[in-house]
Amino acid sequence: MNEHTEALRAALARLRSKHLEEFRRLVEVPSVSTEGRGIDEAAKTVAGLLAERGFSTEIRPTAGNPVVCAWGGNADGPTLLFYEHYDVQPVEPLEEWTTEPFAITERDGKYFGRGTADTKGHIMCRIAAIDAVREVFGKDPIRYVFMIEGEEEVGSPNLESFIHTHARDFGADGCLWEFGGVDEEGRPSVTLGLKGIASVELRAQVPSRDVHSSFGAVIDNPLYRLAAAIASLRDDEGRVTIDGFYDDVRPLTEREIQAIEDESRRGNNLKAEYGLDRFLGDASGFELNRRLNAEPCVNVNGIHGGWGGPGTKTVLPSKGIAKLDFRLVPDQDPVKIVDALRAHLSNRGFADIEVVMLAGEGPGRTSLDDPFVEIVKQAARDAYEMEPTIHVSSAGTGPAAPFADVLRVPFATLGCAYPGSRGHAPDENIRIPDFENAKLSTALVIAGMAR
Amino acid sequence: MNEHTEALRAALARLRSKHLEEFRRLVEVPSVSTEGRGIDEAAKTVAGLLAERGFSTEIRPTAGNPVVCAWGGNADGPTLLFYEHYDVQPVEPLEEWTTEPFAITERDGKYFGRGTADTKGHIMCRIAAIDAVREVFGKDPIRYVFMIEGEEEVGSPNLESFIHTHARDFGADGCLWEFGGVDEEGRPSVTLGLKGIASVELRAQVPSRDVHSSFGAVIDNPLYRLAAAIASLRDDEGRVTIDGFYDDVRPLTEREIQAIEDESRRGNNLKAEYGLDRFLGDASGFELNRRLNAEPCVNVNGIHGGWGGPGTKTVLPSKGIAKLDFRLVPDQDPVKIVDALRAHLSNRGFADIEVVMLAGEGPGRTSLDDPFVEIVKQAARDAYEMEPTIHVSSAGTGPAAPFADVLRVPFATLGCAYPGSRGHAPDENIRIPDFENAKLSTALVIAGMAR
Repeated sequence: MNEHTEALRAALARLRSKHLEEFRRLVEVPSVSTEGRGIDEAAKTVAGLLAERGFSTEIRPTAGNPVVCAWGGNADGPTLLFYEHYDVQPVEPLEEWTTEPFAITERDGKYFGRGTADTKGHIMCRIAAIDAVREVFGKDPIRYVFMIEGEEEVGSPNLESFIHTHARDFGADGCLWEFGGVDEEGRPSVTLGLKGIASVELRAQVPSRDVHSSFGAVIDNPLYRLAAAIASLRDDEGRVTIDGFYDDVRPLTEREIQAIEDESRRGNNLKAEYGLDRFLGDASGFELNRRLNAEPCVNVNGIHGGWGGPGTKTVLPSKGIAKLDFRLVPDQDPVKIVDALRAHLSNRGFADIEVVMLAGEGPGRTSLDDPFVEIVKQAARDAYEMEPTIHVSSAGTGPAAPFADVLRVPFATLGCAYPGSRGHAPDENIRIPDFENAKLSTALVIAGMAR
Repeated sequence: MNEHTEALRAALARLRSKHLEEFRRLVEVPSVSTEGRGIDEAAKTVAGLLAERGFSTEIRPTAGNPVVCAWGGNADGPTLLFYEHYDVQPVEPLEEWTTEPFAITERDGKYFGRGTADTKGHIMCRIAAIDAVREVFGKDPIRYVFMIEGEEEVGSPNLESFIHTHARDFGADGCLWEFGGVDEEGRPSVTLGLKGIASVELRAQVPSRDVHSSFGAVIDNPLYRLAAAIASLRDDEGRVTIDGFYDDVRPLTEREIQAIEDESRRGNNLKAEYGLDRFLGDASGFELNRRLNAEPCVNVNGIHGGWGGPGTKTVLPSKGIAKLDFRLVPDQDPVKIVDALRAHLSNRGFADIEVVMLAGEGPGRTSLDDPFVEIVKQAARDAYEMEPTIHVSSAGTGPAAPFADVLRVPFATLGCAYPGSRGHAPDENIRIPDFENAKLSTALVIAGMAR
C-alpha cells in the first residue's frame, strides 16, 4: 500500500467539484472527428486546461486533426506519458439518448455524456491526478508529457507519422493508455498490448457486365471466385492458411502464459452474450484467452455482389467484393501480411482477384518484465483494494506500434470505464466511484514512479 | 420445298394489314404480370381473337393468372399445340424507350413495342398462319390447340400443376414453343430443349448479433462459412462436386452430338460481348456448345452480408446469405438436386448452413428422331430459304418438363425475334421481314403436318 493513498484520495475529494466543472467544459465541445466538427475548440479547451497548470503546450498540426502536446513537472524526474484523444464518436441515433449528448448529466450515480468513457473522462483523470499529487507532495515529483490526438475515432491515420517526426519530444519511462476500466465484478483491468490490423478489399470480376445465369455453364462466376479465394485463407477452426502468415509471431514468455492463465480463471459470458454453441477450435479456458490475447486471425467483414433482394434473379453477376481484416500480433507487419496474401492468392490460382489494402496498424505489447508494469499493478491494487486482472493484450487494435517500436515506451491501461459504459453508443456513461478510483490510481502511478 | 409456300406467302401478304391491326390491339394491353396489371384484359383480347375464328375458347383460372385455352380446326387431323403467353415484362426504365411501350410503332423496317418479340408477336404469327392456311387450303387441315399462359415472365409458377390437372385437353402431335427467331446472319434457329433450374438461398449465421471483429480469433464467421460452403460446390473449371449430381444426366445421342457439332461451326461472339479471356475449362467449339446445350452447372447469383460501404468496418457480421441456381439437364430433377445439395453440405461439415429452395423447374428435350422435328426443319428451310440451325437445347430454362414428361409432346421453336430484339429491355422490337417469315414458317408447319 502506497503511504500516500489516503492523502491522495482526500485531496481528490476536495478537488472534485473543480474537476467536474472542467470535465463539463470538455464534454460540452462536440468534437466529432468523423464529422469534422468541434475539433479546434476541443484542442484549445484541452490545451487551456494544461496551460492553466503551468504546462508548456503546443497544438501541433498533422495532415488531419492537430495533436495537443504538453510538457510539465519535474524536468529531472522520470517521465510519464499520457496518450489520450479529444475526439469522440458521432452521437446518432439521437433519439436513443435519454440525456443531452454533449453535456454531463449526473443520474443514478453516473455521469452521462458523449466522451465520458471514451475518452474525455480519462483526460480528466490524468489532470485531476496531477493536481492531487501537487497538493499532497507540494510539488511535481516526476515529469509529465501529454500526447492528445484528435483522430482516434477514425483510426488514428496520422499518429504514426506524427510520432516518427516528433519522437524526441515524447520519450518517457511509462505511458498510460487512453482507455481502461473495470470488469463486471469491478476489478481493474490492466491491458499491456494491442493487436495490429491489416484491412483489405478483395475484388473479383469475370464478365464485363452482368450476364444471364444460363451462361454459367461456360462463363466463370466472380462470386464463386471470391468465395473460393476466401475459403482458401483459413481452415474450419480459424487457422490462417497463408504461407508464412505465422512466421513473425513472437512466442509468449512464461510470464505472459502465466498472466493468460490467471486471466482465464475469471471466465467470461461471450457464449451467452452472442448466442454461440462453441468457439473456434472448441477453445475454452486458457486456449480461449490465448487466442484472444495472442493469436492472429482473419475476419470477413462483408461480401457483396449480385442479387440480394427477395426471391430469385437468374443473373451471373459481373463482379463482387469482400472486405477482410487480419488481426495481427507482435511482430507481424501489416504490409508484409498483405504481400503474403497477394502471393497466396497468386499461388493458389486466384491471380485474378484484386487486393486493395485499405488500412494497416502494427501490433504492440509491453513486456511483463518492465518495472512500469509493477508500478501500474500496485497503483491499481491500492486504489481498488483488489488484485487487477492483467491482459497481455487486448483482442482489439490501436496505434500501439509507434509507442512500442519508435518511442519504445512501456504502456498500460488504467481507467474509468466499465462494461456498461456504452462507448460509441447512445447514453455513454461512467460510474462516479469508478471515475474517482481511476483518478486515484493515476495519482498512485505518479507516486509510484516518484520513488 | 412445300408446294403451298408461295400461295401461303401471298395469302399472308393480303392479310397483313388485318393482322397488324390485331397485333396492335394485343400490344396496347399493358399486361405486366410482375405488376399484376392488364391481365384480365389481355386474356380476353387473346381469347376474343381466337373466338372470332371459330375456336372454342376458355379462360381457365389457376392459383395465379388464368390460362387462355382454345381448341379448333379439323378434329380428325393431327394436332398442333401452340404454347404462348400473353404477359410481358415491365417497361421500366421508361426514359430509355424512344417509342411508346404499349403501342406498335413502325420505324426503320421494325415494329417497336413491349411484347412484339416476347411474345405477343408469336401469338400473332400463329393466328396469321391459321388464317393463311384457311385461305389456301379452303379449310383447316389439322386440329389446333392453344395454351396461352399469363405468368411466363414471373417463372410460370402455376403452369406445371395446370398441365397436370388438364393434361387430357392438351394432347398433341407437336408443339410450337413461345419463343424463337433468327441468329446474327438471319438464319432460323430451331431449339428442341430447355434446361431445368433449381434456385436456392443459403443462409449462414454464427453470433446472434454483429460482433466487433476483434473476436474473430475465437468466434466463427458466417461469411467464411458461406464462402467455404460455396467453394465446396464446384471445382475451378465449373464441374459440380456434389455427390451424385451427374447421376441422372441422360447421355447425348449420336444425332444430338452431330447437331451440336453442326451448331459449333456457326461460332459466337460471347467472348467479345462479355469481355472474357476464356471459358470455363478453356472450352471452345464443340465443347463450348456441348456445355451450353447439355451440361448442368451451378451459379452464384448473389452473396450479401456485413459491411459493403466505403472503407472499412471492423465487424464480424451475424449472418450472410447467398442465392444460387443450378441449371439442370434431362433427366435431373430439381427436388432431388436440392436434396443432394443438403446432403453434400451436411457431409462436408456445413450442417449449419440453411438451404431454402426458392424455385424449381424440370428440364425437357425433344428427340431429334421425332417426325415433328423434320416437319419444323423443312418449314424453316422453305420459309427462310436457308438451312436452320438446330439447338439440342437452349442454355436457358422454361416450363418444358410438363410438356416433355406429362403431355409427352415434341416441341420446337420457330419465331419472329432476332438478336437485336431487346426482349425484357426498352425499345423491344422485331424486324418486319422476320415477322413475315415466322408467320410463313408456322403456316408451313401446319401444311407439313397436313400431309
